[in-house]
Amino acid sequence: MIESGLERVIPAFRSVCGEDGVSLSEAVREQHGRDESVHRCCPPDVVVWPRSVEEVSALAKICHHHCLPIIPFGTGTGLEGGVGAVEGGVCFSLRNMDRVLDVHQEDFDVTVEPGVTRKALNSYLRDTGLWFPVDPGADASLCGMAATSASGTNAVRYGTMRENVLNLEVVLADGTIIHTAGRGRRTRKTSAGYNLTNLFVGSEGTLGLITKTTLRLYGVPEAMVSAVCTFPSVQAAVDSTVQVLQAGVPIARIEFLDDVMIDACNRFNSLSYPVAPTLFLEFHGSEKSLEEQVTVTEEITRDNSGSDFNWARDAETRGRLWKARHDAWYAALALRPGCKAYSTDVCVPLSHLPQIIVETKEDLVLNRLTGPIAGHVGDGNFHCIMVMDPNDQDEVTRVQEFTERLARRALALDGTCTGEHGVGLGKRALLREEMGPMAIEVMQGLKATLDPKNLMNPGKVL
Amino acid sequence: MIESGLERVIPAFRSVCGEDGVSLSEAVREQHGRDESVHRCCPPDVVVWPRSVEEVSALAKICHHHCLPIIPFGTGTGLEGGVGAVEGGVCFSLRNMDRVLDVHQEDFDVTVEPGVTRKALNSYLRDTGLWFPVDPGADASLCGMAATSASGTNAVRYGTMRENVLNLEVVLADGTIIHTAGRGRRTRKTSAGYNLTNLFVGSEGTLGLITKTTLRLYGVPEAMVSAVCTFPSVQAAVDSTVQVLQAGVPIARIEFLDDVMIDACNRFNSLSYPVAPTLFLEFHGSEKSLEEQVTVTEEITRDNSGSDFNWARDAETRGRLWKARHDAWYAALALRPGCKAYSTDVCVPLSHLPQIIVETKEDLVLNRLTGPIAGHVGDGNFHCIMVMDPNDQDEVTRVQEFTERLARRALALDGTCTGEHGVGLGKRALLREEMGPMAIEVMQGLKATLDPKNLMNPGKVL
Repeated sequence: MIESGLERVIPAFRSVCGEDGVSLSEAVREQHGRDESVHRCCPPDVVVWPRSVEEVSALAKICHHHCLPIIPFGTGTGLEGGVGAVEGGVCFSLRNMDRVLDVHQEDFDVTVEPGVTRKALNSYLRDTGLWFPVDPGADASLCGMAATSASGTNAVRYGTMRENVLNLEVVLADGTIIHTAGRGRRTRKTSAGYNLTNLFVGSEGTLGLITKTTLRLYGVPEAMVSAVCTFPSVQAAVDSTVQVLQAGVPIARIEFLDDVMIDACNRFNSLSYPVAPTLFLEFHGSEKSLEEQVTVTEEITRDNSGSDFNWARDAETRGRLWKARHDAWYAALALRPGCKAYSTDVCVPLSHLPQIIVETKEDLVLNRLTGPIAGHVGDGNFHCIMVMDPNDQDEVTRVQEFTERLARRALALDGTCTGEHGVGLGKRALLREEMGPMAIEVMQGLKATLDPKNLMNPGKVL
Repeated sequence: MIESGLERVIPAFRSVCGEDGVSLSEAVREQHGRDESVHRCCPPDVVVWPRSVEEVSALAKICHHHCLPIIPFGTGTGLEGGVGAVEGGVCFSLRNMDRVLDVHQEDFDVTVEPGVTRKALNSYLRDTGLWFPVDPGADASLCGMAATSASGTNAVRYGTMRENVLNLEVVLADGTIIHTAGRGRRTRKTSAGYNLTNLFVGSEGTLGLITKTTLRLYGVPEAMVSAVCTFPSVQAAVDSTVQVLQAGVPIARIEFLDDVMIDACNRFNSLSYPVAPTLFLEFHGSEKSLEEQVTVTEEITRDNSGSDFNWARDAETRGRLWKARHDAWYAALALRPGCKAYSTDVCVPLSHLPQIIVETKEDLVLNRLTGPIAGHVGDGNFHCIMVMDPNDQDEVTRVQEFTERLARRALALDGTCTGEHGVGLGKRALLREEMGPMAIEVMQGLKATLDPKNLMNPGKVL
């Protein structure tokens, strides 16, 4: 594309964001051992680094005029190839817009620009007694998390991005700036018109560029305690989860790791957990309420033949415990040095979890694949971290076939092909199966209305 | 319209739902003293009572072919004129579709048809240990509640319909049937494609007819306790609310009533609450957790000069206490026998509540209007129940001007012109001010895509 005329447009980009704000042919890629055989790296033709919404709008207008694809880029930590420039075009790296705006302590809300990551926000909030709990693992940009409808370990208690975004500033494909709930609005609820906020949350950059997001905040819990508990079977771990939720325990995190994942974590972090289905738990609340939450949960896990709890009370021990969970990706990679990984993502109703996990583990063995399982079991959401040799075409094919079978297994159990990673490049065909042709047609209609030239992150989702 | 050719279409309606399923010129109206001078009753030309989604689809196809407006009707309890047939047309009364389908106890979900009201569902669930908490006061149809994005007294703890609808079956204007999250899907979270579910939640019948909704359920709390507490000022009541939320108390209900409202409740229900700003509170949880929630809340209210709590522990006393709150509408009406009422609805960030309530009370006095205030203070949402003589045109005009000033006051404080009643007929101009012209254009684009002939509930929202 560069050769065929994009260079004529570059001066216009430079007039908006200066010499340093435009870079030619620089691949924007994520390098954490992610497997390019699943989502090939597709560098854009140009990268621009706007510093304000006005610059984003001006740049979008240029792209719109010249019919150039626009690829929004936050931190590049997404897992379904969402930032790949499959048709070339202009990558909008938003990292230079990194201000935390308008913390309203009494109203429990904050507005952030797209360069602000979740860790940066929580550092910023440290002295306010407030925090933002949605935690997808990676230190993703909050606007990127809104774009992909991210969630993670705390969602069982605090919800996903869908429940926690109050307003978005969005630049549409033609450069128009809108505020999905009206400019500056930040009420905890509203019935005013169509819910544009949740149309853009999870749209993966295909409907517009998110340049600001207003988020709900929460009071930092008075106390937290974490625990690890081992089970004789997947069924016992899941039964415990269902019963804990039925008992109304407001559990903050309830994470499942299968025997293979635990074994990998043990090796990677020099730990010695029993190699068995395991739950990592975390409780938030007052000291008194923690006591009760823990008592009820312990009773339930014991009734399901769970082990005694392995406790982590102080911040440091809790940090160590959760590091093991958060390092799952690297622990999985370390099982086969030199290999790459791809993390799958499906979600089913809770009661179907034991069946799908057992069947999936059989499938992995049968097809000689390495895929430790970790999941947000309180939401019915889990991942297989597929470790593979990218040079072994046969293995790569087996992984691709396996992930499709897994998604179809979820679909057959009233589930979804993605609970939190999104559709991106890889799950478009599965999305069609999940939604049916009529709902897909509705989605295509919405896309065509908001982006008639199909410039926003083309090739993704639909 | 009947005269101009609609009668040619009637046989087609009858062929779908039989002789008894079609009625000519029958006004479908709500008769609880609602003021028609604010939203005039506009009867449709025809009412149809389909018994299945297939009949809804077949009837919609006939309307689409003949360009007849379609007005979905649940229980008619909406407050912003949403069921008025302002351009005539066909009212789809969905009360004959009244099955509760597929209760999944382990997964905490249920699917209902549009004739099922929230009270009917909770009766049905009585022996399951589960309940659906969203409670807008009226015994509304659950699909209607989805259509209007309803909420009410429990939203501070359990969220609104936006957070509690997992999937919808929708018939579009041309008769196409879609499932917003894919047929039969009911996962607690998903990132699969655009969030169609929350596009239809709150669309007030202008994008399609909701023929099924899948809802999240909750475990019935082990214990509940309610209390009433009186304050020297609005500020003290609101400060208490903010501090209770900051302290992380998972309060289930925190309702504000101003002195005028309390006075009305006292008269209507022969009660003797002090005539002052008052909070009605409810706590849900285990016995132990209630104890702690109550202790923390009492400390906070005392620090803000609140009275001692007036307790309601057993179900009967709690019922009596909340009856007073739920009877607010009738208590307000009883202030001026022979008058009618209109309930306003705005929502602001919590910290702005004292200012807007104080200014609004001054406005009421200045303009000689009767408008007791009741609100879901934990969400920043409140109502003035405007009691007026419908034959006094001057008073009606003053009410209309007052409600617009109130909405604009909310807009000036980062708020919304409607927290839960919706836009309907009355707030279209305010919605434009709230959203700005560009966001309205986006909404119009979405409407035109899904309903190009503008047949779905025309004249509402946009």
